[in-house]
This record gives sequence, structure tokens and C-alpha cells, in this order.
Amino acid sequence: MNNIPGFFLSGIHAGLKKSGKKDLALILSERPSKASAVFTKNIVKAAPVILGQEKMKGGYCQAIIINSGNANACNGTGGYKDALLVSKSISEKLNIDESLVIPSSTGVIGKPLPTGKIIKSLPKLIKSLNGNNVEDAAAAIKTTDKFAKYAFRSFKIGGKTGTICAIGKGAGMICPNMATMLCFILTDLDISRSALNKALKISVDKSFNKITVDGDTSTNDSVFILSNGMLGNKEITQKSRSFNSLVKTLTDICYEVAEMIVRDGEGATKVVKIEVKGAKTTKDAEKIAGVIANSQLTKTAFYGEDANWGRIIGAAGRAGIKFNPDKIELFFDGIKVYSKGKQFQPESKYSHIFKKSKFTVSLNIKEGKADSYILTSDLTHNYVSINADYRT
Amino acid sequence: MNNIPGFFLSGIHAGLKKSGKKDLALILSERPSKASAVFTKNIVKAAPVILGQEKMKGGYCQAIIINSGNANACNGTGGYKDALLVSKSISEKLNIDESLVIPSSTGVIGKPLPTGKIIKSLPKLIKSLNGNNVEDAAAAIKTTDKFAKYAFRSFKIGGKTGTICAIGKGAGMICPNMATMLCFILTDLDISRSALNKALKISVDKSFNKITVDGDTSTNDSVFILSNGMLGNKEITQKSRSFNSLVKTLTDICYEVAEMIVRDGEGATKVVKIEVKGAKTTKDAEKIAGVIANSQLTKTAFYGEDANWGRIIGAAGRAGIKFNPDKIELFFDGIKVYSKGKQFQPESKYSHIFKKSKFTVSLNIKEGKADSYILTSDLTHNYVSINADYRT
Repeated sequence: MNNIPGFFLSGIHAGLKKSGKKDLALILSERPSKASAVFTKNIVKAAPVILGQEKMKGGYCQAIIINSGNANACNGTGGYKDALLVSKSISEKLNIDESLVIPSSTGVIGKPLPTGKIIKSLPKLIKSLNGNNVEDAAAAIKTTDKFAKYAFRSFKIGGKTGTICAIGKGAGMICPNMATMLCFILTDLDISRSALNKALKISVDKSFNKITVDGDTSTNDSVFILSNGMLGNKEITQKSRSFNSLVKTLTDICYEVAEMIVRDGEGATKVVKIEVKGAKTTKDAEKIAGVIANSQLTKTAFYGEDANWGRIIGAAGRAGIKFNPDKIELFFDGIKVYSKGKQFQPESKYSHIFKKSKFTVSLNIKEGKADSYILTSDLTHNYVSINADYRT
Repeated sequence: MNNIPGFFLSGIHAGLKKSGKKDLALILSERPSKASAVFTKNIVKAAPVILGQEKMKGGYCQAIIINSGNANACNGTGGYKDALLVSKSISEKLNIDESLVIPSSTGVIGKPLPTGKIIKSLPKLIKSLNGNNVEDAAAAIKTTDKFAKYAFRSFKIGGKTGTICAIGKGAGMICPNMATMLCFILTDLDISRSALNKALKISVDKSFNKITVDGDTSTNDSVFILSNGMLGNKEITQKSRSFNSLVKTLTDICYEVAEMIVRDGEGATKVVKIEVKGAKTTKDAEKIAGVIANSQLTKTAFYGEDANWGRIIGAAGRAGIKFNPDKIELFFDGIKVYSKGKQFQPESKYSHIFKKSKFTVSLNIKEGKADSYILTSDLTHNYVSINADYRT
């Protein structure tokens, strides 16, 4: 297992998950890191998100404590107090300023956070800190996730090689049972706060904001980036020559984790990229892609391996964006399927595409030059089982 | 079986459905009827919808020919010619003006309409016409529908009693396999064209526009109303004293058929009314209700009989409408579930509601005075089976 210079991680079982699996993680930087974050746009925000938004105004972070098994959402003012208590307790134990500690939660909504169990486990959590514990931390933040999610990139600058690590969890929003997409990006690169803000925003827009499992946005969704500067490079700013390539690398690692999240979507058997091209604006392209990606009919067709272009065009048509159905073109993995208002060639020419575990559906609406895309999964019997039967 | 004075109906098997079931219906009025219609808002419109829109500009209709088994959508210009051919052929056989004949289709998208089979069956279709054939016609327009859908109302005016009959089909949009919500409303009342337009618009807004099975809008959705005036009442106009009660009765019959469509939604086991109250505008209320009603997570919770308020509040929060989560109140069939940012009482007080086949989820966001609602069904294993496996 790689490590990220200056970062120590741990993941243990604190008793929040009845299964006995890991449910509490800690990320600690040797020194305060410059930090940035983006949070859920859901009006209903979990207590740790509200607290996290306040704390991130300072722009520095040294430790993140993450529990799974409980989202600490919809718990009224008590939830906020609990988040504050956890954050305060760990800051005392670590002897770092409380403003540098971020709490994060994922799991059941509407149940009080078992702060007693968490606080009792802090000594063990701290004792387990280790530079090689990425996998443990990734495991401890899982909810319905079938596998732990993390990725590494190296980044060369001024003759030195920095490390970027992203640790994520996802599987769609499964609120209030489990909830949430989380991602923690850690790097020893030295990056200015405004560069972090901008780079994170761009990367998230092209990755985590481009995935959908069931169209739901959770109360807890958060992505953090921490730059502790241990590499000793000249600080990367928005004006640095390396800024664009940093954005590219960040986008790339975020996309990898985002794709893992879709692949691990509840009950998913396929990852499908929906591209919409030739729109007047990016927003139009996004809207059409989103409607196709969230249509129960297209998602069941993916599951049924039914190369059913009619459902895709029907979904596009109800997105509220004007186009001429007789001009559009549809492709499955580059093979033309629909053109001039009708099927372009026999289904036997493209039906095999839908049997793949990963493919691209590309619609050109011929109205302009703007493009967008979204990654989605199929809608399966297992999705229904997981979500209908979970609490029973 | 009731009948509607001056209307004759038939429903036969013309060979479009492989199952041998009825697939061709005819509705004929003894004399030209004043008529109005509303059509799908999908950009991609089936050929008969495009033709129907043109024909309805005249405001009169005497016959409607409806086939199931083929939607005649996404067939390019050939589809339009086929719709025209069917309409012309039946007008010749019936010896009525072509402008008074409306064709309507529902079924598979992207396959040429088998006009030969339809035209060959016209003599049999006409011969079967009968005032008591509402059930046959309703059966012939079914696609995945498990039961034929129709309802009757009587309407008293000037000492006489008029009849209103609505014949519908639905089960969500299942494009391109089967598609579409259709409804044909027939009455012997004499109603002015502008009154028909207005009354139909209001009624559809409160019924068919308030239902969702899977959030998809088909290429073929259409609702027609025909008033042949055989009752001999004084023509009802928008200024008539009876206009409001006509609207009420029409809304009522449309709501009944709309509820049948949701109940028969693919694989559905429950009908759930989602009410949103206390919004600033009706549009805000509609938007939140729509997001809740189409959330895969709420719909699987309904199926799992899991009285899971967190999923409902989580869905409401992502609708993009501002509200204060600490002020909202949620009720299941009138029982308070959530208030002041947290669960109001133990789940045992309300979990039984979700075991019912029909219940109401009511959310008050306390921001204003506008209300709206939507009817939805649950998302079941059977839905996935129907839609994933249909063509395989």
C-alpha cells in the first residue's frame, strides 16, 4: 500500500455497525493543511455538513474524523451539538486546535449519533494511526459499498514527485438507511487555497457531479481536499504553469473514484456513459443527459441488455429542451443507431454493445456546439431488493 | 353496460398483437361532435399525434380509430403517411369527411404501422359497432394494462340527464414497447368548443397531469373529448351557470381513470398521493411533489412498506425549492411523523399506514399558501421484470 507523506490514517470498529465491521476512520496530517471542500446542494443538510461548512471558512484542516452507520442528519439541534462534541473530543485527544478538525458522517438518518461509542473508541482510533492505512480508512467509511474505494496519482513538479490519494464511498443515496457520497483527497503537494478551491470545483463538476445512481442527492455528500505541502514544492497557485495539469490530474482521480461509485451502485451490473452533443448550451446538454440517465425505462433497458433506442429518444424528448427529432443522431459505442427520424440499421449491428459491462450512449441533437455527459448505472431487481427490504 | 347516446363503439382483433387479443377500436358519433384534445408535451411526437393536432384545429370530430400494438412513432415521414392512410381509409368506409376522423396509436415504437392489417379489418370493425361496446373498445386499446379502464358519470341540466364516459389506457410510458396514456371522453351533452377547451384543460391538469408511474412522458399521450349534443340541452358555454359543475364532474371522472392508470402502473402494488402544502407558489409545490413521487428511493420504500420519512424529506430537499428543514411537517394519512427537524413520535404510531394499498403522504413546508399533489405508484421487482425483460 502506498502512503501520502505526512498523512496518517486509521479505520476501526467502534460499535456503530451491528455487523462488527469497521465504522470509524481518522485522517490526520502531521501539520495543518490548506483545505477546500464542496458539500451537498440538498436543502436538508446533515449536522456535520453544516458544521463542516462553518469550519472550512478558515481554509485549514488537520484532522477528519468519519463515522459510518449513522448520518447524524434530521436530528434537530441535538445533531449539531453531537457533531460539535465529537469534533471537540478528538481535537483534545490529538491536542490540535478544534477549528482544524472536521467531523463527517454517513449512515442511517434520523437516529441520534452514538457519541458515547465514538468517544470511547478515540484512544484506539488514534493508536491505530499509520501512514499505510488507506485501505482501513476506506473500509471504515463504507455503508452499502461492496468494495473499498481509493486511487493514487503521482504528480511531478520542480524535479520532485508529489502524491495524490482519493478515498471515497458511495453507492447512491440510500437515505435514511445509509446515505451519501463522500470523498477525501489528500496530497503532500503545496497548493494555494484559492488554487485548491478552483481545482476542486472543476474536478468535482467533471466527476462526482456527473454521476447518478438513482437521481437522489444525499443530505451528507461532501468532498474534501487537504494539501499539507510536505513535498516542499513551490506553492501551486492559479497562475502557476502546473495549475492546468494539476486540475487534469485531480479530475482524473476524481473520475476514477466516481466511476467506482457508479459501478458499485446498489445492485448495478453496468456503468453507462450518457453523452449529449450538439446542444445550444452545456446546461441543455446536461439536462438531456440527466433525464436519460435517470429514466427508469432506459435504466431497466440497460439491465435487460435491450438495445432499445426508442426509450432513450423518448427520454430525451421530455427533457424540456427543443430539438428536431428528424435531425438527431444516436450512437452506441460509436455505432450509428438512429438518424433522420428512424432506425439507421438492423438491431443486430449494435445489440451486442448492450451486453458489455461498460458502454457509451451518445446523442447528437444538432442544435449547437455544447456537450456534456453523465455516468449512470442500470436499474436491477437487486436495486429494488436492497432499497425495499433493507429495514425489514 | 351503459351507453352514451349517439355514440357507437367497437373493439376487435386485427392482427397487430401476436397474442390474438383485441387491438383495434373505433368510436363513431352519429353526427359530428364538437371536440377538444390535449397532447403529449414530449418533443418527440408520434405521427398520429402530429396529424391529430392538425385535425383538431377544425374543432370537430366524428370518428376516432385507435390501434394498440404499434405506436407509429419514430417512423420518419413514412409514419405520417401511414396515419393519413388509415384515417383516409376509414373516412371512405364510413362515408364521412376525412377531416372528422382522428387516428390514434399506442404500442411499439420504431416499427412501421401494419396498415395492411388495419385496412383489411375495417369492414369487421365497422360491422361490430354498437352502443353497448364500451368494454370492447376499452379492451382493444390496452397494451400492458391488466384491466380495461372506463368510467361513467351522469350530469343533470335543464331537467335532462346527460352521460359522460371516459375510456382510458395507461400503465406508464413503456416506449418503445408499448407506450402511452390515452383517454377518450364521450358525452351527449351539448358543450361549446371554447367551454370544451377550457374544461378539458382544467380537468387534465388536475388528473392526468398529476400522475406518474416512472416519470416518463410518452410520444403518444393524448386526451380527447367529444360532445355530440344528442341530449338536446342548451349549449353549455364558459358563461353558463352549469359550467363550473361540468368542470367538477369532468375532473372527477378524469381523476378516477387517472387513479386506475396508476393502480395498474407496471408492477405497482400501491397508489400513493403525495401532497405538498405551504409552498410559495403552486409550481414550487408541484416540483417538490414531483421529485418525491419520482424518487426511486421513496418508491422502493412504499413497495417495502417501510414508513421511511427520511427518504421523503431527503427527496424534498433536492427539489431546488428553498425551505427551512426545521419548520416543515410531514404526515402519513394525517398522522404527524416529522416536526421541528426530527421524528415526531415512535414509528409504531404510523408504520401501519404503509401497509395499506392506498395512502397519502403530506408535506407542509410552511413557506406560503400554495398546494399541489401528485399520484404515484411503488417501484417493484415486477416493474423491473416487465421493463427489463419485455423484448427478450
